[in-house]
Order: sequence, then C-alpha cells, then structure tokens
Amino acid sequence: MNSRDDHLHWREIVSQLVKRCGIFDLYESRRRAPNGTEGIFHLLKAPDWVNVVSVLKDDAGRTCFLMVKQYRQGIAGITVEFPAGLIETGYRAKTLKPIGTIAPNPAFMTNRCYTFVAGDLHLDSSREPKDRLDEQELLDVLLVPVEDLVDGIGRDPYTNSMTALALYWYQRMEGGEKGADRIRTGA
Amino acid sequence: MNSRDDHLHWREIVSQLVKRCGIFDLYESRRRAPNGTEGIFHLLKAPDWVNVVSVLKDDAGRTCFLMVKQYRQGIAGITVEFPAGLIETGYRAKTLKPIGTIAPNPAFMTNRCYTFVAGDLHLDSSREPKDRLDEQELLDVLLVPVEDLVDGIGRDPYTNSMTALALYWYQRMEGGEKGADRIRTGA
Repeated sequence: MNSRDDHLHWREIVSQLVKRCGIFDLYESRRRAPNGTEGIFHLLKAPDWVNVVSVLKDDAGRTCFLMVKQYRQGIAGITVEFPAGLIETGYRAKTLKPIGTIAPNPAFMTNRCYTFVAGDLHLDSSREPKDRLDEQELLDVLLVPVEDLVDGIGRDPYTNSMTALALYWYQRMEGGEKGADRIRTGA
Repeated sequence: MNSRDDHLHWREIVSQLVKRCGIFDLYESRRRAPNGTEGIFHLLKAPDWVNVVSVLKDDAGRTCFLMVKQYRQGIAGITVEFPAGLIETGYRAKTLKPIGTIAPNPAFMTNRCYTFVAGDLHLDSSREPKDRLDEQELLDVLLVPVEDLVDGIGRDPYTNSMTALALYWYQRMEGGEKGADRIRTGA
C-alpha cells in the first residue's frame, strides 16, 4: 500500500456470508472510508480462474486455437471460449507459460484470472475427450483459425471477456516490443 | 440461434430473485438441458456497463489516458482504471465512438460492457470535477502516459479486466489491419 493513497482506503468493519452459490459465495461487508463514510458492499468470493491458449494445426494446415463452444447461463446464449477451469479438451500440454493476469471484476469479485499458453500439445490417447466433464458442462471442442478469432473477437460467439483478454495476452507475447512500440507511436 | 447448436441450449423452467445487491441482483434459475439434465444456476442481473477511453496531452506534452484511481472493494485494493459508469472526471467529450463490446462474465452475468473513445475533449469549466460523484466513490482523476499503461497492464494498479479490454480495443483501433496482420503472421 502506498501512503499517498491513504485517503482512498476503506476498512472492513464486519463481513458475513449471505449465500453459497456454487461458483462463488456472496458476502456482505460493512466498510468505512477515511472520511468516515460507511457502506455495505456485496462481494463475490471466488477461487482464482485459469484459462489456457493452445495453438494447433488443423487438418487443412491452418494455425488454430483450441476452443470450446458451450451454452452460457448468464447471457443465455452460446459462446466460443478458450478452455478454462476444469474443462477437459482431450489434449495434454507438456508446458504451460504464464502470459497475463487480471482481476475479472475488482469492484465486487475477490479473485484473479491467470492465462497460460500451452506448449508441446498432444492428444491424450488414454481416454475419450469428454470423460471428465462436469455433467452440467455440455460442450463442443473446436479448432478456430487464429484469424477468425482475431477478426471476430467482441462479436458472437466470441464475447467472453476472459477469452478476449487471453487473446490480448497472446498477441502481446507474439508481438513483443514491436507491438508496444506501434501503439506508442500511433497514440 | 444456430440449429447446429440445439444440443447445447438450456431452457429456463423457473427463475426467482434471491437478493437485490445494489449494483446487481442475484437470481436463482432452474434450467433443463437438451439431454434432460436439470440444474440451478445463480445469475447476476446487472445493467450494461460503459467505459470511456480519453486521450489528452499532459503539461509535459506527453500523450496520456484520462484515468481514475480508486479503492475497489472486491480486491480490497487500489486500481487505476478508465472512467466507467457514472464517474465524473470534469471533462466533456463532443464525440463518443464505439470501439468494442464484451460480455464481462457470460457464465453468470447477464450484461455487456461497451467501450467508447472520446473525441474533442475539453475541461468542463461550469463546475468542479467531483461535483456529481457517488458519495461512496472516493477517487482521484489522473493522466497516465500511454506507454505506462501499455507496459503496466495486468500488474498493480492496472488490474481491472474491463480497463485491459478497453486498452485492447483502443490498440486495435489504432493498429487497424496492420495489427491483425502482425498477429496472423506471428502465429
């Protein structure tokens, strides 16, 4: 904590669990600001999230991302996303390199999302791809050409913010300093 | 809806409000999958979000983003973010151009986040910058050099996912097709 920011820091007075909701727990926290203002804040405590960018060639030789298509309950619609959490794609990676971290929602979520890029991917021949899926996660595993995702990000079905950020981290890694220089001079 | 995706679509049986939490309402929704599986899902209904990228020169002539520093209750820490929602920075824009849209969390949030870039910015001399702040939003308005944000995104205090995405949309707009070509050939 930076002492110059003291005037911004709220302090917790009391916190209580309101409801366990499976993928997060809802808490109410009473907090006080340096100026004496008090407020009650609703917070979601959730485990950290992980998503993985995997690059593969498809049968036509195109460079593709390994992605999953599924129904998302929040938006009540289909998304195509990078695999996250415990999703089972049927592939195994020998290496996982961290390429970016973010707070999905610092205003009311406590967690972080870590993105990795997979290296040395191979099909796991020891079992069927969907053997270990959570029973509520009906999904399709897809290979999406890199340019399709780059062109389509932000439009259906590529609307998941964590997938967009994973693509951003991946492009940053691939572009390296050239990318940073480009934006600096373009700005 | 694409008929090829019929096997993925869940249908709502019943939905009920669990708790109003100010910036979102918590609902429980019972839904059924095409294969007959039923589940109860906890969903946050929230209004759509907006954030705004504004570019200004600082006193030293550096190209900067107009940003806000504040305490974020979810991560219990300080972030520096693009202005969002009803935050009052003291500046007025003559134009707002949409540069990107995303679903912050399609798994359990219903809303979208729209990012705009501001054009023809000027200080609103008719009142003090913080006249209309929500009383719980103690914050500082800052000018952050573009290269500081590009270099620092994903590390404290630049950890808000919606800010990272707004930067991505901005870089995409600035880079245009060159950026897309770079990632395609790099991949």
